Amino acid sequence: MKITKKRLAHIVFESDDWASKTFDIVLLFLIFGSILVSILDSVASLRSTYGTLFIVLEWLFTALFTVEYVLRVWLSRKPSGYIFSFYGIVDLLAILPSYLSFFVVNSQLLAVVRALRLLRVIRILKLGRYISEAEYLQRSLRASTHKIMIFIGFVVTIVLIMGTLMFIIEGPEHGFTSIPVGMYWAIVTLTTVGFGDITPATPLGQFVSSIIMLMGYAIIAVPTGIVSSEMASQRKKDEAAHLISCSNCGKENVNPSDNFCGNCGVKLR
Amino acid sequence: MKITKKRLAHIVFESDDWASKTFDIVLLFLIFGSILVSILDSVASLRSTYGTLFIVLEWLFTALFTVEYVLRVWLSRKPSGYIFSFYGIVDLLAILPSYLSFFVVNSQLLAVVRALRLLRVIRILKLGRYISEAEYLQRSLRASTHKIMIFIGFVVTIVLIMGTLMFIIEGPEHGFTSIPVGMYWAIVTLTTVGFGDITPATPLGQFVSSIIMLMGYAIIAVPTGIVSSEMASQRKKDEAAHLISCSNCGKENVNPSDNFCGNCGVKLR
Amino acid sequence: MKITKKRLAHIVFESDDWASKTFDIVLLFLIFGSILVSILDSVASLRSTYGTLFIVLEWLFTALFTVEYVLRVWLSRKPSGYIFSFYGIVDLLAILPSYLSFFVVNSQLLAVVRALRLLRVIRILKLGRYISEAEYLQRSLRASTHKIMIFIGFVVTIVLIMGTLMFIIEGPEHGFTSIPVGMYWAIVTLTTVGFGDITPATPLGQFVSSIIMLMGYAIIAVPTGIVSSEMASQRKKDEAAHLISCSNCGKENVNPSDNFCGNCGVKLR
Amino acid sequence: MKITKKRLAHIVFESDDWASKTFDIVLLFLIFGSILVSILDSVASLRSTYGTLFIVLEWLFTALFTVEYVLRVWLSRKPSGYIFSFYGIVDLLAILPSYLSFFVVNSQLLAVVRALRLLRVIRILKLGRYISEAEYLQRSLRASTHKIMIFIGFVVTIVLIMGTLMFIIEGPEHGFTSIPVGMYWAIVTLTTVGFGDITPATPLGQFVSSIIMLMGYAIIAVPTGIVSSEMASQRKKDEAAHLISCSNCGKENVNPSDNFCGNCGVKLR
Repeated sequence: MKITKKRLAHIVFESDDWASKTFDIVLLFLIFGSILVSILDSVASLRSTYGTLFIVLEWLFTALFTVEYVLRVWLSRKPSGYIFSFYGIVDLLAILPSYLSFFVVNSQLLAVVRALRLLRVIRILKLGRYISEAEYLQRSLRASTHKIMIFIGFVVTIVLIMGTLMFIIEGPEHGFTSIPVGMYWAIVTLTTVGFGDITPATPLGQFVSSIIMLMGYAIIAVPTGIVSSEMASQRKKDEAAHLISCSNCGKENVNPSDNFCGNCGVKLR
Repeated sequence: MKITKKRLAHIVFESDDWASKTFDIVLLFLIFGSILVSILDSVASLRSTYGTLFIVLEWLFTALFTVEYVLRVWLSRKPSGYIFSFYGIVDLLAILPSYLSFFVVNSQLLAVVRALRLLRVIRILKLGRYISEAEYLQRSLRASTHKIMIFIGFVVTIVLIMGTLMFIIEGPEHGFTSIPVGMYWAIVTLTTVGFGDITPATPLGQFVSSIIMLMGYAIIAVPTGIVSSEMASQRKKDEAAHLISCSNCGKENVNPSDNFCGNCGVKLR
Repeated sequence: MKITKKRLAHIVFESDDWASKTFDIVLLFLIFGSILVSILDSVASLRSTYGTLFIVLEWLFTALFTVEYVLRVWLSRKPSGYIFSFYGIVDLLAILPSYLSFFVVNSQLLAVVRALRLLRVIRILKLGRYISEAEYLQRSLRASTHKIMIFIGFVVTIVLIMGTLMFIIEGPEHGFTSIPVGMYWAIVTLTTVGFGDITPATPLGQFVSSIIMLMGYAIIAVPTGIVSSEMASQRKKDEAAHLISCSNCGKENVNPSDNFCGNCGVKLR
Repeated sequence: MKITKKRLAHIVFESDDWASKTFDIVLLFLIFGSILVSILDSVASLRSTYGTLFIVLEWLFTALFTVEYVLRVWLSRKPSGYIFSFYGIVDLLAILPSYLSFFVVNSQLLAVVRALRLLRVIRILKLGRYISEAEYLQRSLRASTHKIMIFIGFVVTIVLIMGTLMFIIEGPEHGFTSIPVGMYWAIVTLTTVGFGDITPATPLGQFVSSIIMLMGYAIIAVPTGIVSSEMASQRKKDEAAHLISCSNCGKENVNPSDNFCGNCGVKLR
């Protein structure tokens, strides 16, 4: 069987038959494999033992991802559309750092670029049966964006005021060396993370901290309330969208899984 | 009164009369007792004083649980069904470690197996009046599974990217010795646990941490929103399932605890 | 004006006229005052300076609360009913420690008894306009009790298993000195408190901790879901209870603040 | 074009044409700029390098905000109304500290007054398209105020009792130096912040802490529940307020964005 360009495009872009599903699964394994190698390579003891193996595997993954990238550009109906799309950039960034390593000597900068390869994991979310739920989540979050922006603005205002207050009260001698550090502490405290790397030592500082923490208590309820009520609303819309009307008597909100209209008894399907 | 096999099966598997309830309660006390002994045995000071007592009690519990296990296998209509069921395996694991201690010298491995006895506590949930509520919780969680899986995938992606970022920014000199350690730190931070065993020390690291924490703030709202809206939906279904229709006038949503239809006054039961 | 016993009982037990309101407000100030003195007395530097003043005030408060207690016993229609009620016991415990201090030499034990005086603050919740909201909260929490008990049982099971696991994995050399300490750590972690006094040091321990923390993430959603859906349900019942039906046309769900029925125009009041 | 007083008042107080929008945007930049300078000025290393620049900029901002303040007082229809309003006081406090620095030598006190300038950021919330959402949030929070007050009273009671208990159990030797410190610790723990600066060291203290943390688990659900159910209720009211009835057939809950009644087909507008 000769593989045409159209057939190849089908394998790469769709996932509804044997060949295209295999392509997706192999790609998935490559993505997970390359991430795993990146992670293991960062562990000093493993690097010293398996360093060469990791380098070889790194180049193997880069080669395969390069092939994938070239295929996607070549097979796209509109290559420029793909290249400048989100995933097009992600795919490019996944192979670029390895090639850059020929030119870049600064290993720190290299690591930054390499880290971007991890963005490929987002692709996983594109696959499989979970799509409708992902969209459900996405829609809820998008509908809440305005409210969450307001909320973040509100939190930043509190963080600014509280960070400044604590900088004034506690001062550099207790670790609050500047307003930015005070703001970092205020975020750590308001979000209830509480690392404990910087803590109030004066009675007044502890009192103000207590106020901040009790505020955090009430504040943490707000995004939850926003997302919850948004999700409940989305769910209601979804359920409403699934209901139909009886074409005979006009009764609304008929469950589409019913066979007969509950009002007039006419056969629905 | 001679106890037949059928009567014995009733005592072991049901809990609706005096004998079967007593069996359940005695078993409950044995489970709690054996857990308590395991816990106390782990405290070094208590072990050195009461060590021999604990060993004796341990064997007593093992003997009684062995009797229970043999009874359950013997009395089951389909023994293999019980043996390979979840609780069958739990029951076996509850007695196996003691017998294994004859053969196993490695006390660490022994402790692992012994810990599995604790799974017996799940049995408590099977008893008593709380069953309907437990099912309610279970149903809500099962219905949310898809959404929570998506969400965990989303969190893991963030953890991967943030852990790598912080490993690059802070580096081994501030405790971020590898990407896995960075990911551990990202989980500690995103979940707002914040142990403080590893904390960012550079201004850039503190800035990125602040972003992560504010994200955690918004993210923590998502599972709550999912579970809340799922529970509200389950509750509505439950309430709807309990409502009946009047057979005389056709009024819907009649509360089944009413004796007369509120609309036409016809006796409902 | 001679004050009769009946009048005095009205002043003590009711709060609907000038005298009885004054009594409540004075009592409130005494309660807050005595709590404040207890708190300030615990600060070493203040105690050394104002110690004598605190002792004098302590005895003054004790004398006044004794008068209040005797009055309440004397004025109750059924004194034994008051004495053995929750508030009767609280009132007794509020004065007992001071008298006990004549006999008890152990200051630690004394402090424990003295702490119970603080329970008087609960009385504040009985007063004022917030009663209906307090009942609303109480009803929501009471209705959720079953579900929250199940949930606590579920959490304790996880804490038991995880505490044991971490005790096995990390062991006494990393601070996990016994299963109870492991369980304490598991609670600190699951509830996202994260003191950081005990933290996992081995890679496996950090991995298991990450799992626990992600579980805590999902688990924290459950009580919120329970309480939220319960509150939404209570609110709906409250709103439904406030709606009336039109006595003319039978239209249901008429807002009682309306003057006319929105359907037939009949005057409602 | 001569600028009349009326025109100037329009520019300062409204934001519906080119000039008034420009005024708002310039003011916004000035506010952000002055905050940024305050923050950067607090970083010791930047202060030593750019200290003089910061002082010059500080005086520039003060001068411009003074012009703004004088304009607002002069242009207000009722100047005293503006001066004693919330924003009037905020505007005054934004310029006062700089002038006070001539007289005040104590730099700590000065810093406190200077910090109040940050309150200007609240003004941002007044601007832009987010107003309706901000009002939505505000309304939900205001409607929940009573319930949240009750809740805070409840939390303070627990904090008082638990702080005292831990002071008694752990004592000064483990960091619980007084009841106020114990209460600070109880707040840190109940809100799940968990700095770890003070931690229980005795087994009994760890047990009581575990109880507090599990309570915190349940308690954190309450404000979320309050805000969530309040938001859901507000949303429902908002949606209901937007629905209209058909004037021809009487069909209720017609979406006002429709042009024709979905029931009878009559033109709605």
